[in-house]
Amino acid sequence: MGYEIERKFLIKGDFKSQAYKSFRIKQGYLSLSGVSVIRVRVKGEKGYITVKSALAEGMLTRHEWEYEIPVVDAEEMLNLCEEGIIDKTRYLIKAGDHIFEVDEFYGENEGLLIAEVELKEENENFERPEWLGAEVTGNVRYYNSFLSIHPFKSWSKL
Amino acid sequence: MGYEIERKFLIKGDFKSQAYKSFRIKQGYLSLSGVSVIRVRVKGEKGYITVKSALAEGMLTRHEWEYEIPVVDAEEMLNLCEEGIIDKTRYLIKAGDHIFEVDEFYGENEGLLIAEVELKEENENFERPEWLGAEVTGNVRYYNSFLSIHPFKSWSKL
Repeated sequence: MGYEIERKFLIKGDFKSQAYKSFRIKQGYLSLSGVSVIRVRVKGEKGYITVKSALAEGMLTRHEWEYEIPVVDAEEMLNLCEEGIIDKTRYLIKAGDHIFEVDEFYGENEGLLIAEVELKEENENFERPEWLGAEVTGNVRYYNSFLSIHPFKSWSKL
Repeated sequence: MGYEIERKFLIKGDFKSQAYKSFRIKQGYLSLSGVSVIRVRVKGEKGYITVKSALAEGMLTRHEWEYEIPVVDAEEMLNLCEEGIIDKTRYLIKAGDHIFEVDEFYGENEGLLIAEVELKEENENFERPEWLGAEVTGNVRYYNSFLSIHPFKSWSKL
């Protein structure tokens, strides 16, 4: 089992020029129960299935188990997923000792940009790049699982 | 992706003396949505996560993807599972060209015995051992996923 401690931010400036790597991600959810989230992901040429324990709003730590699976399996399982498939490009950007992952969303989530940084401890310090906007950690609206059901373009109706 | 074609039967006689192997299975369900079933299983010393597409009553074929995972992960994930954990011993019995799996359930499903045989084609013939009882293929009551929510001991109340 792994733990995941991450903080999420909006974006307020150009970040793409600082990315050292980028790849396309398509993912969906086989389950979004109150207790766990089961995600299927195609990331570049690889496939993954991930089980995450549910995360209460405001908490930073959740349990996570991720396994690499054949990419063809992941593509087939995306057809079983409930609600919308998330389609995005992920940009990796170094800042001090950390790597920020910035997701640029497409389709029904077009217009949304989210940066995430993974920490080893909840109180860990990290360098904040100048393009980093307001923190949205723990705000369920910015969870990919929420976005798959209530995409960004539908938010004005929420 | 694999396909699973199996037929299920009740038991009407002694089968244990014919078993060439047996092992304990504990399993639970991370998700039981209308579209897919996600099962976590500890089988002897090994762990598995399995995704199955939903099966309409009366159908014999479903999609299935199974991955071996660390047994400690599977044990931890059983704590996330919804509803009841299924606990049973599985006996393997050869009959002609096929292997019957007979499950003897414990706990809330004590008293229930189910035999399954996996086939390559829906019309495939197979030898029927003398202890094989009535066929219950496609009857959702005998799905382990159903038993985890409505265990055998509660059936008189259904």
